[in-house]
Amino acid sequence: MKNYIKHHPWEIIEEGFNTEFNRVSESLFSIGNGKFGQRGNFEETFTGDSLVGNYVAGVYYPDKTRVGWWKNGYPEYFAKVLNAPNWTKLSIKINGEILDLSHAKVTKFNRILDMKNGLLKRNFIAKLKNGISVTVQASRFCSLDQDNMGALSYSFTVDQSAEIEVSSYIDGNIRNEDANYDEFFWENIKSESNDNQCTLIARTKKTHFYVGLKTETNLFVDNDKINRFQSHESAINSPTVSSFFSIEPEQSIVIEKKVIIRSSLDVDKDQLDDVLVDEINNIQNLSYKDLINNQQKAWAKKWSESDIVIEGDIAAQQAIRFNIFQLNCTYSGNDERLNIGPKGFTGEKYGGSTYWDTEAYCLPFYQSTADKSIAKNLLIYRYNHLPKAIENAKKLGFSDGAALYPMVTMNGEECHNEWEITFEEIHRNGAIAYAIYDYINYTADKKYLAEYGLEVLIGIARFWKQRVNWSEEKQAYVMLGVTGPNEFENNVNNNWYTNKMATWCMTYCDESIDWVKKHFPSDFERICEASSFDDSERKDWRAISTQMYYPFSEKHNVYLQQDGFLDKELIPVSQLSDDERPIVEHWSWDKILRSCYIKQADILQGFYYFEHEFTHEELKRHYDFYEPLTVHESSLSPCIHSILAAKLGDEKRAYDFYLRTARLDLNDYNNDTRDGLHITSMAGTWMTIIKGFAGMEVKNDQLTFNPLLPKNWESLSFKINFRDEVKHVFIDRLGLKINE
Amino acid sequence: MKNYIKHHPWEIIEEGFNTEFNRVSESLFSIGNGKFGQRGNFEETFTGDSLVGNYVAGVYYPDKTRVGWWKNGYPEYFAKVLNAPNWTKLSIKINGEILDLSHAKVTKFNRILDMKNGLLKRNFIAKLKNGISVTVQASRFCSLDQDNMGALSYSFTVDQSAEIEVSSYIDGNIRNEDANYDEFFWENIKSESNDNQCTLIARTKKTHFYVGLKTETNLFVDNDKINRFQSHESAINSPTVSSFFSIEPEQSIVIEKKVIIRSSLDVDKDQLDDVLVDEINNIQNLSYKDLINNQQKAWAKKWSESDIVIEGDIAAQQAIRFNIFQLNCTYSGNDERLNIGPKGFTGEKYGGSTYWDTEAYCLPFYQSTADKSIAKNLLIYRYNHLPKAIENAKKLGFSDGAALYPMVTMNGEECHNEWEITFEEIHRNGAIAYAIYDYINYTADKKYLAEYGLEVLIGIARFWKQRVNWSEEKQAYVMLGVTGPNEFENNVNNNWYTNKMATWCMTYCDESIDWVKKHFPSDFERICEASSFDDSERKDWRAISTQMYYPFSEKHNVYLQQDGFLDKELIPVSQLSDDERPIVEHWSWDKILRSCYIKQADILQGFYYFEHEFTHEELKRHYDFYEPLTVHESSLSPCIHSILAAKLGDEKRAYDFYLRTARLDLNDYNNDTRDGLHITSMAGTWMTIIKGFAGMEVKNDQLTFNPLLPKNWESLSFKINFRDEVKHVFIDRLGLKINE
Repeated sequence: MKNYIKHHPWEIIEEGFNTEFNRVSESLFSIGNGKFGQRGNFEETFTGDSLVGNYVAGVYYPDKTRVGWWKNGYPEYFAKVLNAPNWTKLSIKINGEILDLSHAKVTKFNRILDMKNGLLKRNFIAKLKNGISVTVQASRFCSLDQDNMGALSYSFTVDQSAEIEVSSYIDGNIRNEDANYDEFFWENIKSESNDNQCTLIARTKKTHFYVGLKTETNLFVDNDKINRFQSHESAINSPTVSSFFSIEPEQSIVIEKKVIIRSSLDVDKDQLDDVLVDEINNIQNLSYKDLINNQQKAWAKKWSESDIVIEGDIAAQQAIRFNIFQLNCTYSGNDERLNIGPKGFTGEKYGGSTYWDTEAYCLPFYQSTADKSIAKNLLIYRYNHLPKAIENAKKLGFSDGAALYPMVTMNGEECHNEWEITFEEIHRNGAIAYAIYDYINYTADKKYLAEYGLEVLIGIARFWKQRVNWSEEKQAYVMLGVTGPNEFENNVNNNWYTNKMATWCMTYCDESIDWVKKHFPSDFERICEASSFDDSERKDWRAISTQMYYPFSEKHNVYLQQDGFLDKELIPVSQLSDDERPIVEHWSWDKILRSCYIKQADILQGFYYFEHEFTHEELKRHYDFYEPLTVHESSLSPCIHSILAAKLGDEKRAYDFYLRTARLDLNDYNNDTRDGLHITSMAGTWMTIIKGFAGMEVKNDQLTFNPLLPKNWESLSFKINFRDEVKHVFIDRLGLKINE
Repeated sequence: MKNYIKHHPWEIIEEGFNTEFNRVSESLFSIGNGKFGQRGNFEETFTGDSLVGNYVAGVYYPDKTRVGWWKNGYPEYFAKVLNAPNWTKLSIKINGEILDLSHAKVTKFNRILDMKNGLLKRNFIAKLKNGISVTVQASRFCSLDQDNMGALSYSFTVDQSAEIEVSSYIDGNIRNEDANYDEFFWENIKSESNDNQCTLIARTKKTHFYVGLKTETNLFVDNDKINRFQSHESAINSPTVSSFFSIEPEQSIVIEKKVIIRSSLDVDKDQLDDVLVDEINNIQNLSYKDLINNQQKAWAKKWSESDIVIEGDIAAQQAIRFNIFQLNCTYSGNDERLNIGPKGFTGEKYGGSTYWDTEAYCLPFYQSTADKSIAKNLLIYRYNHLPKAIENAKKLGFSDGAALYPMVTMNGEECHNEWEITFEEIHRNGAIAYAIYDYINYTADKKYLAEYGLEVLIGIARFWKQRVNWSEEKQAYVMLGVTGPNEFENNVNNNWYTNKMATWCMTYCDESIDWVKKHFPSDFERICEASSFDDSERKDWRAISTQMYYPFSEKHNVYLQQDGFLDKELIPVSQLSDDERPIVEHWSWDKILRSCYIKQADILQGFYYFEHEFTHEELKRHYDFYEPLTVHESSLSPCIHSILAAKLGDEKRAYDFYLRTARLDLNDYNNDTRDGLHITSMAGTWMTIIKGFAGMEVKNDQLTFNPLLPKNWESLSFKINFRDEVKHVFIDRLGLKINE
């Protein structure tokens, strides 16, 4: 773990130029506005180690699948989040020497993420090889209130008279570091620079998304605008405007740069050029200060709906705000085609945008802190992908409208290519059904079932029906060859969680049919026709639900994670030596598979979902049996354990797990923050406080709470903001009070 | 399946120019001599679809591993059999037009593989676009008696006076079609042409193997040598000599080309050039006819030791000879560093040279038909790799000298990269131990145990000991997470075959220790020291052997392939529709895994190995239970089933399975012969006759036989040649008689 980020309630602060952690910092200092986002890269030239990242929501590339040995059913491609052209670029030449921190002597350096206002700031003093010292203040943001726009301000002074060359450009020479075959994914269609503007229109290969960027750069010397751009380059990869001038010591140079970013998701590709012109004109008269003002207001609104105040532990406070900030940078929810990628706009890894994380971890956050329509959009995203989910199931040999949602997707098609995950980690289908239940339960918008939900539930119930088989041996239905949420077990039989999810889905679908039939008969007719649904299908669902096999140990009085689990040697994690942890880095895959160690909550994930079906004693027994075997090597594990620990009154572990999940990236616990942030697990962090500490529940838009930890526990106080409909609440030393 | 190859007792014959099958034919018409070999590509220019393949034994390239998601323990590279420079190349220009069958009108065409003499022949008449008709006879061979040498003769006539340009060259512009990242694997170090000679020395990247080729081309017009090579090109990728002349109709042109091929496996790289000069000089005075004479003699000797005569079924006769021919082309056994690749010198696929096929299928063939030292060399190959096998096991977390032999290897390092195979298909270790037992049993060379065998057995026994664990639940030792020979099941628990193999290995090692201790005490001391062996280790081996768990069904009275096998729906293969077969092409991988279908003999492979431990009734019960569930989608399956069917007196199935394995490539049953021949399964074919039909066994170099099929079955007669030490035998209508 790392500990170089300074604690502060509203800011993420890096002091000193930590080149060895530069990629980690670039991830941590990411900003975004739901439509586009970027890593905390430098504006000026930097030739040191860096992962440059700029991303535009919904723009992806189908990278040709790379596998060792092809297996039937693998997808042909893996939809990659695309690294996109970079609008922030500046080149500063001082007496002919390029300002580049990897070649200068950096005497002062800090980066600050001002989460309250949605601003990324950087200040440094660097001495160039030619002896000139430069003092820089930079700040930038991706506009939350006008999500086609970004802006930066970059000001500097020098300590000697000097000849200056300032170039402002769009870098369109972009490659994904994780491309499977090192291909270029973009073709640049238009590159232009004139006056103080640069334009780049780029098109993705194969998918033919268009992304257009138009920047306007204004140059000030001692607050006087001097827009003398004597040179214009329109090289196809980087339209550039450049200015040459002399300055004296203590003269201040300010570069202000605005950008409009638009993609063909929102604008017809043939109109792109015109729209860029119009929209940059619309903000021409707004100063950087004006724009910041709007940004501050927009973020103030966000925080009023989603902030959590923790008093008494500044590290915990910083962490929860960082989690909430990044979630709001990633997804704003006003576009039903978009979703929450595991790395958001902070890295390339994992590709795809949508995992079951969205339904299992992210939905509750957006449901509580943003407009109701946003959670609904997340659901409709899956509704729109139903035909692809049916096609996906068909590829694997299922029929008659059975739907298997993909493990990873951009457009509804499966993008993952490990058989034990792609074909077997099918419990994801359950999370998608559960999200419908969760949303309706939360909002009382039961009509959603008739409008969208039921069709999805039918497709999922059909899948489970076909996926089980009757075991003559066991005289019960069994489900063979699955991978549960615990990915440290592959191709197991009768994973309890998956079997449980499957029967729950079939039962919920069965009940929902009755309800829709009764309350929305014409919708029901439409659905029957669209799905070719026949009432006789329900008989099988009921038979399976009542005769499903669940592995159980009489001896331990617990459900077993899967068949044969007790053949393993059950040695608690506490007996592993530190140098074997994390086991995924230190052990071979086969050793992990044969071990009893659980990557992330599996049976306990089921207890989290279906807590009302079990007694406190049952929960405690299962928690006590499985927790000691859990290594939490998924970022999605500690949050569930924190919530259950809170329910069991285990204060210490609830708080330890909270800190582990909340500061996962800030402390780089998993040593992989350099690749990007763990966005979806951030929503899990939020849940630990809401569902765990505060024991909050929302049903039919009414808030109830049942604080699970004693009032006088530690010296902490919490204040939690919710969206207006649900109310603001205040928890003082974990005794809940309604806020206002 | 295909049926375009004409039946003939000694020849493989293709008539007509079947461009759509060209890659299949190129595989079928492959030739080799154990040191190098090549596919049946054309000598002259050919721009049609073709997989050009030339291979030099032991020369490989570590191609960077390509996987979807990296897992700990995966090897960094996959050793690829290398496509090598091509010595056979000619370019024939007639009145300025290049002879290229893909642009000419082919009026007559045949390819003949003369297996008796080890010759590949081709005859064709082609009409060029310029109206000239060319009649060609070509033949070539890889010399069996002098394995550094090959030669070809290419003669032609034209039907009009014409200007001729003949170029003879070595093509060094070589790429592996299956390179993971499309890289070049070779650097050409020297390229030279002068007089009638061309020289190319190429070096592999990374591994730095050197391969040198020197050709000498002689040109005859109407039997007069006219070595006027007016042009010499030494371009680094293709040294060339060219001759220009005019000919009249009916004048015959003959091009004779000899080659010396040497690699740095046998010759110091700095001497390579000189050795090539010396060795080409040595054969300078030998005509093509002289060389063929030697080739015929060498093959006559091979056939005298390995031929099987089948009278009464010409397709069966052709097939068994084709299998024996290709086995002898692939491996001559006089180099303990070499082994039997799954595609031999006939294709690139699968990479690596050594699978468990060598021990399980190939050893019996070479043991019976070639000098004793050859089988021993195959064993020593694994002995030499013991340190790497120990290292390999260490990478996976084993310790204290436990050895896991790789699934695929060139130099002892693992080259496979699918976790369910690489880490889990560990039964291969058993085949390697069994081969030691088999060899000693066959030859009575029990001293081998003291010299080499025991060290390997100890490493393997240690591995099994560490690979099992005690199950509290079962009160027995279990083996979790394996893949048995049936690769249509992955990551299963208690695969009967693997558990059985493991305990057999431990028991055999334990017994062998007693024997070596008693008869070769000083060797034993050396082994103890080298292996840090402690006598107390045997206690564990014995405990595990007596307390191993074997899944068994009381109901069916059979051992179960693995835990949970009876949870599957047991629907016989006969009920699958034809359009679902082969299932590996028509079903998704998860559907295959969940099904009961068996890719290749698994429990029955165990019954084949350990037949003496079971009664006839037990064999019959297991055969009757498992055979109907077996789809034989591995080339290594039908042979074992044929042998067991013969033992059970099931004549028809024994013969059907024989034909399926024997003509696998000639009829292209698996639709993949284009990639190369199934060399190792060819040894399985040989076993069906020897072990199945004839019921032959060799113990201590003494032959016994017990024909398993009734004398009057079909109207077939067999004659089987063995190596001298074992005797020639004659089986007339399956009544065995000693031959002479």
